[in-house]
Amino acid sequence: MSLLVVGSVAFDAVETPHGKVDRMLGGAATYFSVAASYFTHVNLVGIVGTDFTAKDESIFKGRRIDTQGLERADGKTFFWAGKYSENMNERTTLATELNVFAEFKPRLPEPYQSSTHIFLANIDPTLQASVLHQVSRRPRVVALDTMNYWIERTPKELRETLKHTDILVINDSETRQLSNEHNLLKAARHIFTLGPKALVIKRGEFGAMLVHQNRTFSVPAFPLEVVHDPTGAGDSFAGGFMGYLATARKVDDAALRRAMVYGCVMGSFAVEKFGLDRLRSLKKTEINTRARHFHKMTQFTL
Amino acid sequence: MSLLVVGSVAFDAVETPHGKVDRMLGGAATYFSVAASYFTHVNLVGIVGTDFTAKDESIFKGRRIDTQGLERADGKTFFWAGKYSENMNERTTLATELNVFAEFKPRLPEPYQSSTHIFLANIDPTLQASVLHQVSRRPRVVALDTMNYWIERTPKELRETLKHTDILVINDSETRQLSNEHNLLKAARHIFTLGPKALVIKRGEFGAMLVHQNRTFSVPAFPLEVVHDPTGAGDSFAGGFMGYLATARKVDDAALRRAMVYGCVMGSFAVEKFGLDRLRSLKKTEINTRARHFHKMTQFTL
Repeated sequence: MSLLVVGSVAFDAVETPHGKVDRMLGGAATYFSVAASYFTHVNLVGIVGTDFTAKDESIFKGRRIDTQGLERADGKTFFWAGKYSENMNERTTLATELNVFAEFKPRLPEPYQSSTHIFLANIDPTLQASVLHQVSRRPRVVALDTMNYWIERTPKELRETLKHTDILVINDSETRQLSNEHNLLKAARHIFTLGPKALVIKRGEFGAMLVHQNRTFSVPAFPLEVVHDPTGAGDSFAGGFMGYLATARKVDDAALRRAMVYGCVMGSFAVEKFGLDRLRSLKKTEINTRARHFHKMTQFTL
Repeated sequence: MSLLVVGSVAFDAVETPHGKVDRMLGGAATYFSVAASYFTHVNLVGIVGTDFTAKDESIFKGRRIDTQGLERADGKTFFWAGKYSENMNERTTLATELNVFAEFKPRLPEPYQSSTHIFLANIDPTLQASVLHQVSRRPRVVALDTMNYWIERTPKELRETLKHTDILVINDSETRQLSNEHNLLKAARHIFTLGPKALVIKRGEFGAMLVHQNRTFSVPAFPLEVVHDPTGAGDSFAGGFMGYLATARKVDDAALRRAMVYGCVMGSFAVEKFGLDRLRSLKKTEINTRARHFHKMTQFTL
């Protein structure tokens, strides 16, 4: 089993009611691979600029993250700046500087080409498709994230990539936008006609929902007294979800449920501190303890 | 065990994207008592006008609902008119005519005075308190609902009544308003200093959350393809919650969890048709089947 992720590695500037950081490591592929590395080996495909130092790269060292797919290019690393509202339910993007990311063409090193599990983080659907073309045989699981930008600007390309996607991992507003349907069950049915066999809907403070084979499974969010920084929560969720799934013998209903829980576990840790601060210092025992906490928080007998 | 409810019995005019009804039976105590009667015997305290016919009253007949506490007064029954937004997440009140409800002074018939479980539906906190004064000994469980109107207009009276309340059953915006705290765990801690020992937060399409003894328990909403009319969902939730609790030998964590599930079950049925149409035709087997469905929808093994 090996898990491949393609997506952004970035520097972020983030302001929340709990603080402000002018420049810290971020990016979907970064959050994803650090979260997933607690479960399995991760092959990382992304691009950084010359401003990405050895110290920045140290986040990947000492973990099960292979960075031979992390390309270096002349120029600056992708930069994003955003500010969260008082209750953190909304965020405003203050700056998006693609920099070297504008010319990104994902290239899979030879050992990556046999990856069994693939996560296509939120990038241009054409680039997502190009990753699948480089894989030597049909992966066991292809999961994809996307956003309003691609749903609006490249609907044809997104639909083409979705044909080769097993699990779509998006939030509720993206689910509604992609399906043009407010009701999430009807939205899921529509999305299943596009290719995916399972839909994972990320709902922020309300947790996450899986729709799959006419069944739904819901996990609440972990109740936290303080959320310091919601940045990367969705990508950390995806990392826990796919990381666990890559270790499961079968991708059946029980495994998908467990993957949902580990996704929520990793998302809940991510928001406890700024940027990657909490994820980078995690212990496997903390992950297991929190997973059991989710169990206590949801189980009942009739 | 006997369950007492005090609250409104009303006529409603409701418009949703799925239809429009100019006048139908409604009111918090009506939804509550019909829902709770599937679990236990209910003593109803409320007031209606001369326009409330035997046909209207038939909703309570053939069920375990005692209506000797339903007062008749000269004048018209409480009337409420409202319209829901396209996605039904918002509603606009078009008319509130208190009519006979303006002079309502709850009076408990003698057999009601030994009720062991009491639900104070959303009415003036002074009237809620007057019900507790008429009870002959400390009930096992007092639960209370309220709304922004009372939180803003009668904060002192509400706080007095909350001192005698075991379980507060409100929605998330009311939780935040009452505690002046956005974070729900901190809000719960504040509310526990006011009297209640448990907080049940109704979250509409996101289900419900129980906070109690430093623990949280979450139940998702039942995913429905079509919601016809959200009116009465919260009161039906409370009916299932308190109805189940009145049958439980002990009010412990396991019983509260089950009560939460039966609350969500009854709320989910309520919204499937207009007004009381779905609740009035329910079968106990349907309730049990749906409760098992909630179990399937939330359970996992690690």
